[in-house]
Amino acid sequence: MADETHDTLTPTARTTLKRQPGKGSYDRKLIYSILDEALISHIGFIDDGVPFVLPTNHVRIGDRLCFHSAIAARRRVCLLGGSPACVTVTLVDGLVLARSALHHSMNFRSVVILGQVSEVTDTQEKTRILEALVDHVVPGRSGEVRSPSVKEARATAVLSIPINEASAKVRTGPPNEEERDYALPVWAGVIPTALTAGTPVPDPKLAPGIDPPAYVTHYQRPSPSSTSQS
Amino acid sequence: MADETHDTLTPTARTTLKRQPGKGSYDRKLIYSILDEALISHIGFIDDGVPFVLPTNHVRIGDRLCFHSAIAARRRVCLLGGSPACVTVTLVDGLVLARSALHHSMNFRSVVILGQVSEVTDTQEKTRILEALVDHVVPGRSGEVRSPSVKEARATAVLSIPINEASAKVRTGPPNEEERDYALPVWAGVIPTALTAGTPVPDPKLAPGIDPPAYVTHYQRPSPSSTSQS
Repeated sequence: MADETHDTLTPTARTTLKRQPGKGSYDRKLIYSILDEALISHIGFIDDGVPFVLPTNHVRIGDRLCFHSAIAARRRVCLLGGSPACVTVTLVDGLVLARSALHHSMNFRSVVILGQVSEVTDTQEKTRILEALVDHVVPGRSGEVRSPSVKEARATAVLSIPINEASAKVRTGPPNEEERDYALPVWAGVIPTALTAGTPVPDPKLAPGIDPPAYVTHYQRPSPSSTSQS
Repeated sequence: MADETHDTLTPTARTTLKRQPGKGSYDRKLIYSILDEALISHIGFIDDGVPFVLPTNHVRIGDRLCFHSAIAARRRVCLLGGSPACVTVTLVDGLVLARSALHHSMNFRSVVILGQVSEVTDTQEKTRILEALVDHVVPGRSGEVRSPSVKEARATAVLSIPINEASAKVRTGPPNEEERDYALPVWAGVIPTALTAGTPVPDPKLAPGIDPPAYVTHYQRPSPSSTSQS
């Protein structure tokens, strides 16, 4: 299950999709492509019997997903204190407009990862992961900016969860209607959606003469086909 | 706390932001504007000691947030079986590029709602909420499509959570750097991001002569200023 040479994860009772199993997948490459495209994930943990769901940045490194956290953050205290974790990533790909209210839907790609989070304590490894978190958003950016100092790396927690017990769920395509509804005289189809970049806003404190690089003026997320396994 | 005539929610121990309290808000109008703009939320619940985080569609109706669910879905069984709920909504507004790796950030608006979910059982009320779920995505659309039949409404669960114990968190603006880093010769600033609509894809089964309406060809999410309280 944990061996990255396997292309498909083994479903468990907890990751087996009971509803709409046709949309489910345990394909490692698909799961990785969703994790690599998404800018944020939502991490769930339990604190005193209450589930908390908080947005966070992530980066996939091989077969684990990594995060940073404040040392004193509730999420770190709970997750390292033994709370199981659930990390969910969702990309909204389109609005599915049907001829009947109930068959409206969304096209999406999502991943759910279950497991235990552990902390990365080696300062050099932490520094590499903190730089990878930057490169997840803007590939190569970490090579152009000041690296984390040892002090900064020590003051920041880095957490990771193995991508072993995980599943993807994907919906694509047009609406699925009741046969009788296809005759209704209303537009039906899909409005594609994507997170897109607007015109960059330079820092008011930017020194004169520094033009935005192409990765700023032409920013875009990686497409599924550009994702590699590693 | 539950009275909608109050403009500010009362923080509880669970919704008080311990980290970066300056980004926190309990302003009802701000919280509502984020819920109304977001297409999806992530709902957290506990099943057998494990937190699950699942994406879902939502609509705000007054001072509660509503969802639909399959009758047999794990989320419904757990939430109605007593699991506390956490509903989190996150809008990614921009990528904050700093001159140092560690000060990279994101501009975002998020809401966390804690509470207990209850089920709507009245068929007429369920039908209204199912139509409101469609109108949340495309305002007015429910008036143009076939309404849920009584059979459809009965076969679908509708859940809601009161928006009482909730908080927003917002980051805006340029990077916050260490003073010494401002002199580094690297571009810094914000790449704004937004979920945008692409070219509509008609259903292959669309009858000839039905043109896409303006809400399809010019689709956009509501902006914060267009959100009302009700």
